[in-house]
Amino acid sequence: MNREGILIVISGFSGAGKGTLMKRLVEEYDGYALSISATTRKPRPGEKDGREYFFLSREQFEQKIADSALIEYAQYCDNYYGTPREYVEKELSEGHDVILEIEIQGALKIREQYPDALLLFVSTPSAKELRRRLSGRGTETQEVIDQRLRRAAQEAEGMEEYDYIVINDDLETCVRELHEIIHAAHFTPGRNKAFIEKMRKELEEN
Amino acid sequence: MNREGILIVISGFSGAGKGTLMKRLVEEYDGYALSISATTRKPRPGEKDGREYFFLSREQFEQKIADSALIEYAQYCDNYYGTPREYVEKELSEGHDVILEIEIQGALKIREQYPDALLLFVSTPSAKELRRRLSGRGTETQEVIDQRLRRAAQEAEGMEEYDYIVINDDLETCVRELHEIIHAAHFTPGRNKAFIEKMRKELEEN
Repeated sequence: MNREGILIVISGFSGAGKGTLMKRLVEEYDGYALSISATTRKPRPGEKDGREYFFLSREQFEQKIADSALIEYAQYCDNYYGTPREYVEKELSEGHDVILEIEIQGALKIREQYPDALLLFVSTPSAKELRRRLSGRGTETQEVIDQRLRRAAQEAEGMEEYDYIVINDDLETCVRELHEIIHAAHFTPGRNKAFIEKMRKELEEN
Repeated sequence: MNREGILIVISGFSGAGKGTLMKRLVEEYDGYALSISATTRKPRPGEKDGREYFFLSREQFEQKIADSALIEYAQYCDNYYGTPREYVEKELSEGHDVILEIEIQGALKIREQYPDALLLFVSTPSAKELRRRLSGRGTETQEVIDQRLRRAAQEAEGMEEYDYIVINDDLETCVRELHEIIHAAHFTPGRNKAFIEKMRKELEEN
């Protein structure tokens, strides 16, 4: 089957384990590419340009906006974050499934431009477990944890916008399920137009 | 995750291997139930009532039509064939994924009544391979083979109506892909309304 890359958008509650899931998906299976965001925030120690982020000046970033070189972008805490179009389209055209991590507004903007994008939402099995994981990090104050849980309550309002909801209870199970969901998406008629046309032509000529 | 059964409709070219695929799916994985059709044709030697078919008299079958006890039915060669509703709904309510083999008109009728049904189409990798398999059976005359290939050309017109197209090239691969596609379908928001509501309630109360 002629394999076209799928643009995969992963959203979910902060603390649900999106980052780990994406990392494991790429490690365990072939054919994936992680999208790298551009940002105007300064690199933290250990971060490398082109690996964690593409680090841009404010001027460079705004030029990219002007050039429509970003699929989507947003501002947080006075910094820009966005998804460079070139890398995503190059990987898709090479047949790779490109994974983006982004919150719901960005996800919906991406669907407008890429109607075939697959939108996945990662949840914990319960709110209690979400609180436990946020607390377990040990790096956040109670105030930050409460704030993330309030944000999660807002994010939960958008769950029906996604194509699939996966529950990250057991990590290995969840990675496998994510892969199966993405793999299955390659079999829709919309992603196999060339094959359908080929079969029709062959059967008519038969 | 609260698992609700999915009604799975399998169509595809005669000779693509639907019967074998369904048999292997049920043998290799848990949670499936094969729907058993009702028919007015006479049992062939070795066929058992309630196993291959529910064998009914014409009068009994027409009573079932009148009672809306069939999800769909059709006539071929002066015999009725149909899908009894009771068995399908019992299995779905028990959380089993119920598999029906049926042609496109029946598949579309089923979707009208069960909008959540999953419609799968099985193809060979090529028309040449379809002809090879039909000839390889050794039981059909050239005329019957040509007739099936013409029928396949008609059926190919409806491929876009299906949710997924699977190619039966290697049997084991195809069985696994079918299972993955069906498994993935359990993760749509529409099939996880109870979980979404639960998370929302918990996060609000948090």
